Amino acid sequence: MEFDTITAISTPLGEGAIAIVRISGDEAIEIADGIFKGPGGKGLLEVNSHTIHYGHLIQPKTGEIIEEVMVSVMKGPKTFTREDVVEINCHGGIVSVNRVLQLILSQGARLAEPGEFTKRAFLNGRIDLSQAEAVMDLIRAKTDKAMNVALGQMEGRLSKLIQSLRQEILQTLAQVEVNIDYPEYDDVEEMTHRLFLEKGSFVKTEIEKLLHTAQQGKILRDGLATVIIGRPNVGKSSLLNSLVHENKAIVTDIPGTTRDVIEEYVNVRGVPLKLVDTAGIRETEDIVERIGVERSRAVLKEADLILLVLNYSDEFTPEDEKLFQAVEGMDVIVIINKTDLPQKIDMAKVKAYAASHKIVSTSLLEDQGVDELEEAIASLFFEGALETGDLTYVSNARHIALLGQALQSISDAIEAIEMGTPIDLVQIDFTKAWELLGEIIGESVQDNLINQLFSQFCLGK
Amino acid sequence: MEFDTITAISTPLGEGAIAIVRISGDEAIEIADGIFKGPGGKGLLEVNSHTIHYGHLIQPKTGEIIEEVMVSVMKGPKTFTREDVVEINCHGGIVSVNRVLQLILSQGARLAEPGEFTKRAFLNGRIDLSQAEAVMDLIRAKTDKAMNVALGQMEGRLSKLIQSLRQEILQTLAQVEVNIDYPEYDDVEEMTHRLFLEKGSFVKTEIEKLLHTAQQGKILRDGLATVIIGRPNVGKSSLLNSLVHENKAIVTDIPGTTRDVIEEYVNVRGVPLKLVDTAGIRETEDIVERIGVERSRAVLKEADLILLVLNYSDEFTPEDEKLFQAVEGMDVIVIINKTDLPQKIDMAKVKAYAASHKIVSTSLLEDQGVDELEEAIASLFFEGALETGDLTYVSNARHIALLGQALQSISDAIEAIEMGTPIDLVQIDFTKAWELLGEIIGESVQDNLINQLFSQFCLGK
Repeated sequence: MEFDTITAISTPLGEGAIAIVRISGDEAIEIADGIFKGPGGKGLLEVNSHTIHYGHLIQPKTGEIIEEVMVSVMKGPKTFTREDVVEINCHGGIVSVNRVLQLILSQGARLAEPGEFTKRAFLNGRIDLSQAEAVMDLIRAKTDKAMNVALGQMEGRLSKLIQSLRQEILQTLAQVEVNIDYPEYDDVEEMTHRLFLEKGSFVKTEIEKLLHTAQQGKILRDGLATVIIGRPNVGKSSLLNSLVHENKAIVTDIPGTTRDVIEEYVNVRGVPLKLVDTAGIRETEDIVERIGVERSRAVLKEADLILLVLNYSDEFTPEDEKLFQAVEGMDVIVIINKTDLPQKIDMAKVKAYAASHKIVSTSLLEDQGVDELEEAIASLFFEGALETGDLTYVSNARHIALLGQALQSISDAIEAIEMGTPIDLVQIDFTKAWELLGEIIGESVQDNLINQLFSQFCLGK
Repeated sequence: MEFDTITAISTPLGEGAIAIVRISGDEAIEIADGIFKGPGGKGLLEVNSHTIHYGHLIQPKTGEIIEEVMVSVMKGPKTFTREDVVEINCHGGIVSVNRVLQLILSQGARLAEPGEFTKRAFLNGRIDLSQAEAVMDLIRAKTDKAMNVALGQMEGRLSKLIQSLRQEILQTLAQVEVNIDYPEYDDVEEMTHRLFLEKGSFVKTEIEKLLHTAQQGKILRDGLATVIIGRPNVGKSSLLNSLVHENKAIVTDIPGTTRDVIEEYVNVRGVPLKLVDTAGIRETEDIVERIGVERSRAVLKEADLILLVLNYSDEFTPEDEKLFQAVEGMDVIVIINKTDLPQKIDMAKVKAYAASHKIVSTSLLEDQGVDELEEAIASLFFEGALETGDLTYVSNARHIALLGQALQSISDAIEAIEMGTPIDLVQIDFTKAWELLGEIIGESVQDNLINQLFSQFCLGK
């Protein structure tokens, strides 16, 4: 394929030591060469691939120095996009990086759309669609484990699984064709049915296994939307502070990194908790009271996890009862706080309302029970499976939906076989499953979907 | 000199396509080699300098893949620090870049202090102190012109000037020593005095020329703190909006860049206006009324430029009079707004109060007079000199202070000569000027000052 030459700033905007402006396309090296002046006067057209060159960017019309730079020249196809790629490292100031970009644009490169470099890597066949999607997951990963999932997917783990399933289906369909074309055997129909049933069951089981990881994968990828509720003064702020401080806001243990960006996320044993309405809890003490029961239900509906806090040294009140009603049917952990004070709460009542929910006793004041709470959070969603590093997680909503549809097609096929439906109808279901799986890796996918997917990328990737 | 091996994240924190973790020092390549695995298995110790290598970072103990990376290997002394430098380009996510950094730290590199890479470039003699300081000025530049000033200083423009002045002084002192040591001539004293006077006057004039650029240099570097004042409803918000929209907040014309970072700066013909208390003006309509006259004077005192807005179609009131009193002795431009409405203001009165201040008439509603206002702002501070690209601006407060002290020493020397003071006393003043100029480029400067200077840098530079 041939594309025009694109450029974009590939580092986050802001003040930093270094910024990168990337150029990709047939003209990339020529454009860079036209504005580059090295100390030896050697042009970039003559240099070896994958080499770095110190020099200045020059406005060719006026000879004015634009920036002091390091230029990396990488010739296709061994590049991110498989095209010729030039990366210009300049000083990380906002004026600096913008004027380098402007200079390149003035030389005929086009401003890249979000995700366009990765899109080219996909369109040029270096990576498939699920790998391309993993690139963005990797950049947005909130925890180490989420990054590992993305890294595995980017390296082609999911792709290989999907490809092998498609291969199974394709081979089955081919074998069926052979059976139909050479009906010298008497039991062609029975053989074909048996083959469909056997392979269909295998594929079905494999897809089910993958979908089994989906909830965990999605949580790793997007974080677990968590809401802390409870009457005033039961210790909601203490719980929040305890979770934040014991586990530190995600990856802020490096001096000089910015907390603000991500401080709503807390890493609890590898599970990224997204603390919803954190500010609200900090400020007002009672989300339910504050926003009214109706609206609070809407907020609660968005939550993946409810931490319902009760006061050990106070009566179980009608307000507590209402809270339990508000979170019915949700994933709830009940926290009985203030166990350092004398008991007043009726535990029988709590247990009755909690039903199957896990109950954890804490004294946040004395730092008691937090470990148990974290254990409860982790095991509620991962049941110990989180540590098995060789599991391929499906985390992307698009993939999950397609796997679900493929599973349906295969299930339909199996049902049809068992009902003795004619072979050609079964073939259709098998083919459909094959196509749906193909959409995951981008084998059979429409242009507008591709455009939409990549538009969610950040600029410069 | 020998230092330990340091590392830091060199790109701004945040989600981006690419992040860079930089390593510098004797162990840089060895550390990178120990955690790098390329597809061919070739180690980084064997590669040529200034080459780029695709591969993975591996946790050496467990073999776990940490990241997919491009590694640039640059061997000293042709590097930013003159030491061996490795730059690891990884995915620009917060988790990703932090775990690459952690991996490198675990291999024995030390986390760099802010500015430590540039500090090494200075300590290893690649650049002098004024050049090092220009690196940070360049990153923080608010406009193109400010960046040009920083770029010029980084390329050694100021350094060369300072060095030539020091050379003049040194040669003079040497010549004087010769005269004293070989007093075979009768008129040694007169010759020496004449030499001192001639050279001293030359150096003095050159320093004065440099200091003459200081105000403009500082404005280019730090922005012009600008306050808009006026009675309610004279059009202060319109003026603000007009300045912001006509000139756009600095460098935000690139899709995908963040406005917030710098939107308080407006680029008016290359002059960065820092609109002080912008939010206040937007919200309350009257800074003087709102914060009281006493406190408002304190705010005004910080300002470099006052834009005093009057209403063309209203009487000149005692409040207007008070505003003029509040900004007495400051740089003020008087704006008569609403010229689209019938005149009620007494222009004779305005002119009397405005005295030597420039008066500009505008109708912000009809977009009239804004050009003239911008012209007035630019010429108030630059008198057309801004465009002369070959001027070396002094912009750094430290440099300005040292130049001022050096000027004083030279002036003292000249005065002493004229008063017939003994030569050895004049020598002391010349020597002092030589030392003070040396501090600018870091020739004679104390460790704790150096540490303090570099600590104001951003991390990773």
